[in-house]
Amino acid sequence: MVTLIRILNCLLLLLLFTFLKAQDRAIEFPDIPGYRTLKCDFHIHSVFSDGSVWPDIRVQEAVKDGLDAISLTEHLEYQPHLADLPHPDRNRSYEIAKELAKPYDLLVIHGAEITRKLPPGHANAIFITDANKLNIKDSIEAYREANRQGAFVFWNHPNWIAQQHSGVATLTELHKMLIDKGHLHGIEVVNDLTYSDEALQISLDHNLTIMGCSDIHGLVDWQFRLDQGGHRPITLVFATEKSEAAIKEALFAHRTVAWFDNLLVGQMLVLEPLIRKSIKIGKATYQGPSSVVSVEIENVSDATFILKNESTYTFHSDSDVITIEPKGKKVIEVKTGEQKSQIELQFSILNALMAPNQHPSVSWIVDVDL
Amino acid sequence: MVTLIRILNCLLLLLLFTFLKAQDRAIEFPDIPGYRTLKCDFHIHSVFSDGSVWPDIRVQEAVKDGLDAISLTEHLEYQPHLADLPHPDRNRSYEIAKELAKPYDLLVIHGAEITRKLPPGHANAIFITDANKLNIKDSIEAYREANRQGAFVFWNHPNWIAQQHSGVATLTELHKMLIDKGHLHGIEVVNDLTYSDEALQISLDHNLTIMGCSDIHGLVDWQFRLDQGGHRPITLVFATEKSEAAIKEALFAHRTVAWFDNLLVGQMLVLEPLIRKSIKIGKATYQGPSSVVSVEIENVSDATFILKNESTYTFHSDSDVITIEPKGKKVIEVKTGEQKSQIELQFSILNALMAPNQHPSVSWIVDVDL
Amino acid sequence: MVTLIRILNCLLLLLLFTFLKAQDRAIEFPDIPGYRTLKCDFHIHSVFSDGSVWPDIRVQEAVKDGLDAISLTEHLEYQPHLADLPHPDRNRSYEIAKELAKPYDLLVIHGAEITRKLPPGHANAIFITDANKLNIKDSIEAYREANRQGAFVFWNHPNWIAQQHSGVATLTELHKMLIDKGHLHGIEVVNDLTYSDEALQISLDHNLTIMGCSDIHGLVDWQFRLDQGGHRPITLVFATEKSEAAIKEALFAHRTVAWFDNLLVGQMLVLEPLIRKSIKIGKATYQGPSSVVSVEIENVSDATFILKNESTYTFHSDSDVITIEPKGKKVIEVKTGEQKSQIELQFSILNALMAPNQHPSVSWIVDVDL
Amino acid sequence: MVTLIRILNCLLLLLLFTFLKAQDRAIEFPDIPGYRTLKCDFHIHSVFSDGSVWPDIRVQEAVKDGLDAISLTEHLEYQPHLADLPHPDRNRSYEIAKELAKPYDLLVIHGAEITRKLPPGHANAIFITDANKLNIKDSIEAYREANRQGAFVFWNHPNWIAQQHSGVATLTELHKMLIDKGHLHGIEVVNDLTYSDEALQISLDHNLTIMGCSDIHGLVDWQFRLDQGGHRPITLVFATEKSEAAIKEALFAHRTVAWFDNLLVGQMLVLEPLIRKSIKIGKATYQGPSSVVSVEIENVSDATFILKNESTYTFHSDSDVITIEPKGKKVIEVKTGEQKSQIELQFSILNALMAPNQHPSVSWIVDVDL
Repeated sequence: MVTLIRILNCLLLLLLFTFLKAQDRAIEFPDIPGYRTLKCDFHIHSVFSDGSVWPDIRVQEAVKDGLDAISLTEHLEYQPHLADLPHPDRNRSYEIAKELAKPYDLLVIHGAEITRKLPPGHANAIFITDANKLNIKDSIEAYREANRQGAFVFWNHPNWIAQQHSGVATLTELHKMLIDKGHLHGIEVVNDLTYSDEALQISLDHNLTIMGCSDIHGLVDWQFRLDQGGHRPITLVFATEKSEAAIKEALFAHRTVAWFDNLLVGQMLVLEPLIRKSIKIGKATYQGPSSVVSVEIENVSDATFILKNESTYTFHSDSDVITIEPKGKKVIEVKTGEQKSQIELQFSILNALMAPNQHPSVSWIVDVDL
Repeated sequence: MVTLIRILNCLLLLLLFTFLKAQDRAIEFPDIPGYRTLKCDFHIHSVFSDGSVWPDIRVQEAVKDGLDAISLTEHLEYQPHLADLPHPDRNRSYEIAKELAKPYDLLVIHGAEITRKLPPGHANAIFITDANKLNIKDSIEAYREANRQGAFVFWNHPNWIAQQHSGVATLTELHKMLIDKGHLHGIEVVNDLTYSDEALQISLDHNLTIMGCSDIHGLVDWQFRLDQGGHRPITLVFATEKSEAAIKEALFAHRTVAWFDNLLVGQMLVLEPLIRKSIKIGKATYQGPSSVVSVEIENVSDATFILKNESTYTFHSDSDVITIEPKGKKVIEVKTGEQKSQIELQFSILNALMAPNQHPSVSWIVDVDL
Repeated sequence: MVTLIRILNCLLLLLLFTFLKAQDRAIEFPDIPGYRTLKCDFHIHSVFSDGSVWPDIRVQEAVKDGLDAISLTEHLEYQPHLADLPHPDRNRSYEIAKELAKPYDLLVIHGAEITRKLPPGHANAIFITDANKLNIKDSIEAYREANRQGAFVFWNHPNWIAQQHSGVATLTELHKMLIDKGHLHGIEVVNDLTYSDEALQISLDHNLTIMGCSDIHGLVDWQFRLDQGGHRPITLVFATEKSEAAIKEALFAHRTVAWFDNLLVGQMLVLEPLIRKSIKIGKATYQGPSSVVSVEIENVSDATFILKNESTYTFHSDSDVITIEPKGKKVIEVKTGEQKSQIELQFSILNALMAPNQHPSVSWIVDVDL
Repeated sequence: MVTLIRILNCLLLLLLFTFLKAQDRAIEFPDIPGYRTLKCDFHIHSVFSDGSVWPDIRVQEAVKDGLDAISLTEHLEYQPHLADLPHPDRNRSYEIAKELAKPYDLLVIHGAEITRKLPPGHANAIFITDANKLNIKDSIEAYREANRQGAFVFWNHPNWIAQQHSGVATLTELHKMLIDKGHLHGIEVVNDLTYSDEALQISLDHNLTIMGCSDIHGLVDWQFRLDQGGHRPITLVFATEKSEAAIKEALFAHRTVAWFDNLLVGQMLVLEPLIRKSIKIGKATYQGPSSVVSVEIENVSDATFILKNESTYTFHSDSDVITIEPKGKKVIEVKTGEQKSQIELQFSILNALMAPNQHPSVSWIVDVDL
């Protein structure tokens, strides 16, 4: 009896928790087989470079957004608040955030932004040990030092129009050299309010890890219009566990998906399982004696899924393009010609990208209750 | 001065009207060049056949939905309430609705549903003069009589699984004969909660007018989940004016688009101008010295537009799939390589269909403010 | 293990149920000690008198509104649809609704509206056995017959301006006679969109049961603006169980509260326990070493409670008027001067009435966690 | 013609503006006869004392909230960020905000918080010329210096439980002395999430200006739950024009109302006209031959008005307590006994306070269209 009451209590807590989660702004995506799906933002500024808030706000935003890991990546060289914050130590922001994050289940990764003209442009080095040592004149030397510290280094906003007037991410000889030497490991395909097809192509051509980052300077609530259902761009990292080491391993292994304005961008190896776990096929039953089968589809993720039918069947309930709201359910009615015990559904996932203009195609084998 | 005050008053009324419209549930689509876009539902039931409401509710629903024309199409043969409503006159429902609609700007078209086994199945005859005369045993004779009365006749729910277990609309020899004789003029591609790719193909192959109808028996509010942003399916009729004669002319001329669950289905001749008038391209300006041009897009319609980029350019702000909310605005940032005074944008309209699986492709020439 | 899984399943169902309930429009008030709180609407019309819907819609509306009991009370004498529905049997509407309600946990009470000029005006007789027998010329005879059938009879809309130009409910000699003879048992203090202070006074002076009814003719959704958070007016009946007999007993025993546009009207004997069960006092703890105690208050009902502080304490968080949203929580901070292990809170309940202009005053003894 | 187009353009802009205003979070209250109603927050912190944001966020919050004037009032003595921001100049925060506010119609008033143990506790001095000069050991000297600079000085959170365990604002001899010498001019009746009846009484007894301030340290969006319809507490200042001088004059003249969590607190002299301008009585017409008059009431303010009927009439549509939503309209139906060409309505305004537990009573003479 005591056990029962304990179970009941647990479940009531779960009920409450579920209810509260449903109300909050925390970003939610399911884990995939073998890996936890960690929500990470590795490009963030505070008053310690050109941001507008103390690190405590960055920690609170991350907690509210349900993030697993963040990195405050202050510009090493660009310090507009220097007159007021004349601190010589570029690790200060990290240290404050690290301390403030202690009460929460939030990892704070030591990082910094190497801020140069293009090429090489801006880059974030995360998992560093001392930011000050990166603050050196020669760009290549800075990358080298970051790598000496064991950092994961990624190219920031290669499409930034302030540096690249065309907005077209373009690889230079310098970048190729950095990649060849193993000094550059990732690239922002998504930065702030922008997405770059060309950066995605570069990531594929040169095996760079796909990154999506907020690059937040002001407030997340305002910049990404949370009041209108928006979300900050993040990198989903598929890690064996929630730890700094596991995140680092996953980043070097390219197991990431960028999540931007309802778009999921990633390599098929992780994108497909993420889609499969986000979209759950439920009960399938024929309507009376007809050969029209009703199939329940549930979307357990935060993405609005836009699916294009590529099955051999047409639908009784929908045209070829179907939308499933976040945390929403939908029943599609499939005309199978005759009653079958198993059918195959295939969709192109229009809100996901594996390459420029290339949407992943995913199929599901559905068992029908006859 | 008096004139000025009059103008001011008019505009304040317009302001109030616009504001109230924005709040209400009235369906809104813009007119197209040469035609008014009339919102029509030609398949409706009341207690006078197997519906659940008196005709006054049907009139009120139509007024609230902003419809221009409706037809109460009672089953001539199927009369489950006969014990309580033993009226012999099949025109009764029309007459009541016609009278009740007088205070409103709502046309009530005289109609009836010829309710037979498949083939030919159910068909609506609208613009009739006497429903009683259609209530005869021989199906072909009923169609013939409808045509003698000058009716526009369309095949109802050819995909209805109660009659067609596969849900696949299938043309029979009888239908071909009716079409050949000019007795059948339209086909429901959309009925109630269903859409039929095969019905669309039949409409194209046999030049039948595309129809979308609610076939409402209960309440529009409940059946089409208005509380969740749903809408009743209707036929958009492109008529030279708002009159019975003009609607009839437009129907016989195939100038219709079915509007169903965010899907627009129609022939390109009317679908393209509807899309062009729904999506308005606004100001286009380059961001500083960059070659990224910001283009304002406004959606003045009730549809959520889902656009797939088919331009030669990629976007700085979005991937290839873009969503624009009803009455919403969006700025897309186009990477044009160099600054141009004119650019061409081309989109496949994923929430519109001109044939099964075929989405219209529409291009816009955009003048840029340099 | 099997048991555990069964429990888990039950609880998951409960979870789902709770979630769905939270979204729906069902009216919710808690039971009170010794009685179930049954939600009832005893004044409803269909096409069988001057209403606009078939009885099936009335059943569906009641199910959606979470009602426990309804009565279709067609006008015996006023039959505007008679030309189309020439049925001679005034029990027909009841019989149809009774049959249609079978799949649901909804009681359909046999009733009718005796529809006369004032006095005596309109009255509903519910729990009758044959409506036809009430359809007789002499008003007093009709009341007598209703009582012979064991009916509970209540005066409808005594404030109806069509019959009573002042809108002021006024007792006549005829009414007094009916009351004295025991033929009139209740009075609508709430009807449709109106509330009557004077009717409430009559109910108190003459010991008539307080009734609140929708008197719906059109659609509940439209008339009571459900899209704007409105609700149909109903009578909360405090019955020993959910059965016709128990409801009848409760009505004759005056155990009712009318629920109208966020107002609860009733005798203190049932109003106070309803308020006590609706407003739950939770944890109370002092803030640190201060003498300000935080008290959690939860409103588990559908009413927005408006409370006026009548305690000896003032609040740190609020002025003397406090609003608690439906299903909402609020923490009030009470300045108790010194730390106490028990405090008394007293509020006047402004959204409840026990007599014209008289709001119930309810006090709570709160134990504080020291 | 050109003029007409110009007018049309103006009105379209107005239309757009009105629409945008309706969507935004800007706090809105009407002007009162002879004065503009300026929305002001004179108690704000940034990273320059113990706040969490750079002054730019404070300026942006104020612009979004539609404020007319703010003052950044950093603690002179409490400087937890001193290690990182070792600036010796206590005017720095003001100077930065002043500069950043230039593009907006926002006044930034020079201020500082004198931060002492109780008594005298904390006080804000605004309209100062040099904050550094206030940073002196002797409290009375600090007040004296503030007054030498021409400052308006008000007592902050006299109910603060960290300093006053009872939460009961209590005047000390020191405060009396400061008031007598004319060195203390206002008192926070509202601070952050608290309201103090006792502070209101002190303001009345000692003729101190009533102040309502946010005392924001974190983010306005989070602290005051803007996502749930909350608002920051502010002081409404009734000034002859929008200028620093006029605000200062109004503050010294006690022309303020504190706006806190739907509560308006102020002296009747300004509270009554504010209520009169917020609540607009519209058309009044009798319903047919009845003596029930429908009176349109419009609330043009951001407050939810809760009115208690104190007229000689009762209502056909409502009980004695009426709620009118922000920017909402309501029709009340008044039973006047006989048709009258003029009636008087009187309400106690429950969401407003002129003294502890004392709600203003306001009456309206309503002309009826006969």
